Amino acid sequence: MDINELNPDVLSVKPSALRAFDHEISADPEIVKLTLGEPDFNVPEHIKQAAIDSINADQSHYPYYWGIQELRDAASTYYREKFGYQYSADQIVCTVGATEGLAASFKTLFQPGDGILIPMPAYPVYKAIAGINHLVPIMVDTTDTGCVLTPEQVKEAIATHPEVTIKGVVITDPSNPTGVVYSEEQLAALVPVFRDNHIWIISDEIYGELTYGVKHYSLSKWLPEQTIIINGLSKSHAMTGWRIGFVFGPTGVIDQIAKAHQFQVTTPTSIVQYASVEALTHGQNDAEAMRKIYQQRCEYLTQELDKLGMKYVKPRGAFYIFVKIPEECHQDSFTFAHQLAKNYHVGLMPGAPFGDPQALRISYASSNENLHAAVDALKKELTRVGAIAE
Amino acid sequence: MDINELNPDVLSVKPSALRAFDHEISADPEIVKLTLGEPDFNVPEHIKQAAIDSINADQSHYPYYWGIQELRDAASTYYREKFGYQYSADQIVCTVGATEGLAASFKTLFQPGDGILIPMPAYPVYKAIAGINHLVPIMVDTTDTGCVLTPEQVKEAIATHPEVTIKGVVITDPSNPTGVVYSEEQLAALVPVFRDNHIWIISDEIYGELTYGVKHYSLSKWLPEQTIIINGLSKSHAMTGWRIGFVFGPTGVIDQIAKAHQFQVTTPTSIVQYASVEALTHGQNDAEAMRKIYQQRCEYLTQELDKLGMKYVKPRGAFYIFVKIPEECHQDSFTFAHQLAKNYHVGLMPGAPFGDPQALRISYASSNENLHAAVDALKKELTRVGAIAE
Repeated sequence: MDINELNPDVLSVKPSALRAFDHEISADPEIVKLTLGEPDFNVPEHIKQAAIDSINADQSHYPYYWGIQELRDAASTYYREKFGYQYSADQIVCTVGATEGLAASFKTLFQPGDGILIPMPAYPVYKAIAGINHLVPIMVDTTDTGCVLTPEQVKEAIATHPEVTIKGVVITDPSNPTGVVYSEEQLAALVPVFRDNHIWIISDEIYGELTYGVKHYSLSKWLPEQTIIINGLSKSHAMTGWRIGFVFGPTGVIDQIAKAHQFQVTTPTSIVQYASVEALTHGQNDAEAMRKIYQQRCEYLTQELDKLGMKYVKPRGAFYIFVKIPEECHQDSFTFAHQLAKNYHVGLMPGAPFGDPQALRISYASSNENLHAAVDALKKELTRVGAIAE
Repeated sequence: MDINELNPDVLSVKPSALRAFDHEISADPEIVKLTLGEPDFNVPEHIKQAAIDSINADQSHYPYYWGIQELRDAASTYYREKFGYQYSADQIVCTVGATEGLAASFKTLFQPGDGILIPMPAYPVYKAIAGINHLVPIMVDTTDTGCVLTPEQVKEAIATHPEVTIKGVVITDPSNPTGVVYSEEQLAALVPVFRDNHIWIISDEIYGELTYGVKHYSLSKWLPEQTIIINGLSKSHAMTGWRIGFVFGPTGVIDQIAKAHQFQVTTPTSIVQYASVEALTHGQNDAEAMRKIYQQRCEYLTQELDKLGMKYVKPRGAFYIFVKIPEECHQDSFTFAHQLAKNYHVGLMPGAPFGDPQALRISYASSNENLHAAVDALKKELTRVGAIAE
């Protein structure tokens, strides 16, 4: 059997460089990791107890493929109260984390050959899912506009790609990897260009509860008829490994996404569905304590990076800082990150997979002690190469 | 936005008729269901405890996308001992149930337009996943050969479909919906035709532990280089709603399937991965008690169906009987199943989605009391239409 005859879209996609790098450095027992985007907090106790109760109650049979009714009802209410989403339970599909929601949405909304705009820097999984669906990802560099996509950039992308029909855009707000949060005005400004060009908006709002001094807005406020929201409990309730996400979309479209979802996974794990009902009905404040700590860490890190003279876009949300590698280092992001891991046992994520080979992503979803270790390693390395004085 | 411009492969696939029918009749509080293919048993206590331990130990962070090492090690050993599989841990991907394993495998092995043989009657999800991947499902009727695919049927399908390159076949053994189990000779006879025509074998062995008086063989014994095995704990350990499956495949191919899997779901739920280690290391005999009870129920049901003069293929495994609707009923399977549900509050699965609109699938993964109710309903209905004497 010839491996080269397998599906070329699968053959050509690369495994997640983020997870591969994380897996690789994890072989070092001393490694301090600020790599993956996952809270260092544990699942709140009341949600853990709900999961245990579900196990003890033998709720282990097939849940309905959209997700159990109680969970979709709870998600409808919770996100209406949090962010003003206007979706009834029958406009919500429960997915195996945000990833599965993205996969089902990309599959459903687009046809092979369609173009999809990805404002850069971006979480690399969007490009991978686009590729695996034989879409044409069009990367739009937003570094000149503070890592915020503008209507002009969208128009320019359309004008410079006449060979592709651009059918979608991914907006990650708050952003991974930059922590940028779109203002109400910035989102409103994008509405006409998306509407006039019939562009589906994949609005990834998974970090929506984690903002620092600014409010999160959803594009669904302006364009519900062409917005698909991806959200979930991985970040807000520290439930990454439990794998629960939600897709919100207009009637007609969401029903199609539900089918793509059904034939991907059937349904998410029953235990987690029942536990998530608890999270959404009694865990409205769970994120707040974590949010405050993230904010303190963010302030600490930005102060320290300022002292080191390192450049970054000021983060207002999520739990990342996307920082430039000083020119004096003369190293691309993978070489630099490997060096740090090898010499100082500190893992920071290379920026190349996000679209900037001269940057690093620091996740501050990690203990203060780990953050100190990271700052210390950067200080030593920048001193060593002469980027800062001893 | 025009819904008709969504992906036509998603638009044209129908939601699972099985789950839709089950969901529909579940609105009746009195309904006795023998519909879905899920054990009426609960998850064994020691596995539930392992899940609870995992929750209490805060193992809630991202597991490696292939699945945790301990689980793949345990699966390697368990299935070697059970069925003689020869796969190391790095040839195993842990999936969100068998469905996700099927989705990742179909996506990876085939290209749009490729043909895939589906021996009928068959579990309808294969056709749906084929359709969503823009493959050409070629249904091969096996009713004349005892619901066992023969080399002659494969050759005939190839000869009569010169317009399609047939790249794959799905073998479900033991079979859903018929309960047929392939003998060693029947499998061995298929090997040359699959090998000579470079046909990938998707070998769905999810019911492998549930056989009655016959042994389960795996096609991977003969053709490991072109077999992808789908298995999991849904049936053997009554863990349907927990969603854990495994894909076994040759090096080179399994790595590609792992990528498709990663961009579908990231990884299955952490709790379930840890609990599944317990299932595979200390639950080798868990299926046996259930198997014995299923066998008794199967014997009871076949005796009763014989008394009613109903026709079916003798089941040797799984937990289904695929029974013909007597001609005297003059009803297709949906009408008949709806009638039974409405008049007697008994839910049997219509045969049409499996490929036979004159049959019903009875799942005996249901209590004896429920089986009695089903037999009673059939008896009344056949009496009513005059198919049997009062």
